[in-house]
Amino acid sequence: MYRASSIVVCLTLLALTGPLAAQGYDPEARLRELGLWLPKPAAPVANYVNAVRVGSLLYLAGHSECGEHFMTGKVGRDVTVDSAYVSARRTALCLLSTLKAELGDLRKVRRVVRVFGMVNATPEFADHPRVINGCSDLLVQVFGERGRHARAAVGMASLPSNIPVEIEMIVDVDER
Amino acid sequence: MYRASSIVVCLTLLALTGPLAAQGYDPEARLRELGLWLPKPAAPVANYVNAVRVGSLLYLAGHSECGEHFMTGKVGRDVTVDSAYVSARRTALCLLSTLKAELGDLRKVRRVVRVFGMVNATPEFADHPRVINGCSDLLVQVFGERGRHARAAVGMASLPSNIPVEIEMIVDVDER
Amino acid sequence: MYRASSIVVCLTLLALTGPLAAQGYDPEARLRELGLWLPKPAAPVANYVNAVRVGSLLYLAGHSECGEHFMTGKVGRDVTVDSAYVSARRTALCLLSTLKAELGDLRKVRRVVRVFGMVNATPEFADHPRVINGCSDLLVQVFGERGRHARAAVGMASLPSNIPVEIEMIVDVDER
Repeated sequence: MYRASSIVVCLTLLALTGPLAAQGYDPEARLRELGLWLPKPAAPVANYVNAVRVGSLLYLAGHSECGEHFMTGKVGRDVTVDSAYVSARRTALCLLSTLKAELGDLRKVRRVVRVFGMVNATPEFADHPRVINGCSDLLVQVFGERGRHARAAVGMASLPSNIPVEIEMIVDVDER
Repeated sequence: MYRASSIVVCLTLLALTGPLAAQGYDPEARLRELGLWLPKPAAPVANYVNAVRVGSLLYLAGHSECGEHFMTGKVGRDVTVDSAYVSARRTALCLLSTLKAELGDLRKVRRVVRVFGMVNATPEFADHPRVINGCSDLLVQVFGERGRHARAAVGMASLPSNIPVEIEMIVDVDER
Repeated sequence: MYRASSIVVCLTLLALTGPLAAQGYDPEARLRELGLWLPKPAAPVANYVNAVRVGSLLYLAGHSECGEHFMTGKVGRDVTVDSAYVSARRTALCLLSTLKAELGDLRKVRRVVRVFGMVNATPEFADHPRVINGCSDLLVQVFGERGRHARAAVGMASLPSNIPVEIEMIVDVDER
């Protein structure tokens, strides 16, 4: 009788902690807590796709801010570091929007693997890391430790449509 | 007797449709239909190799046009978008040439995963996607849906030997 | 009796050649032979990590020279090809330092897969391969055939802190 009730207690605890543990990692809830919402995914502007999955790796195309209204200009001349940080953060939201469209649920993100942050910068610009932090900070806010990634933040001669920031990303995802 | 002949018919159909189905995906036949032929693979210009396979992924080095005669110049100043498109298409043929040398048969290409298209561009250039379409369009013409890839098309300050376009590629391949 | 002694001889030979074979691939011994030592791994300058492993692949962040004292300047104007070669070689040492910190033993490197060599270059610079050879040559000196990688060597508009070279790397590693 004692043993049976122990089992019941254990099963009840498991039933309670299982969902609670899962709830501990809920990137979409985190987005809501941050007061953020995902934009509509961007349609590729040419003959390519937003993402390709191979095994558990999801390769995301180079993204800019989603939507028709986006920042333009060269960082270090037309765009300040602070504004470019905002553009990088919006670009991260656009990447998350593609992830959501591909995965259905952002909890399937096991790890952000690689972020390649490209800044449309003047030849003398030197603060690329502070710009791309706009993306990295958001990824860590939303995914926690799983959002911590290997990164490069570098200066491009020019970018499509004169956007200030473009970001490529590789994500390790739950294959189920 | 009737059942036995049914089995024979089925086996005959399978024997016929098996190769026919395989023939439905024949990138090298597509190349011939397009009137294209693969150039001789380029020898790496320095201490590296053209491709490295790890698991089912084949990482291709940054490629330019194959051969001794290639376009040079900066896009947006010396080279028009239309000419650069042609250079990107020739670069794609050079990538396919490396793929053929590595795989023996282009039917082993399961999916083009990532294309990183680099344009040697002026600081004000903004039409990188139209240039790299020269590569993307060819990949889709040759591989169909399997040729559709995640892509970035961006502007570099300069490229080796002043070429207008350099392209890196990752391909998922049949491991057999 | 004769058969038994044969077995003893074989086992002895195996016991001797096993470690010897392993000793044949010892990148850290190679480093010592070359008179090189690994610098202290760099702390990431922003909200990211030096390396992320997924399966057998280790993705290394964009690295520069390790340490407080590093070269600065634009290649083709402030920095010669020969000096930039040295910076690329030091950057390779910094990448190896991260590898050592991640793996514990450089013998776990099965293959260097991809090197993405970025040169902070003038718009007219054209010798990127000679610069990034500073990294590639060291990788081949240290890892032999396993150090031979797919590579791109390209010109950036600018790099963080005005460094002349930044290098990203992907390595296939022993999972044990």
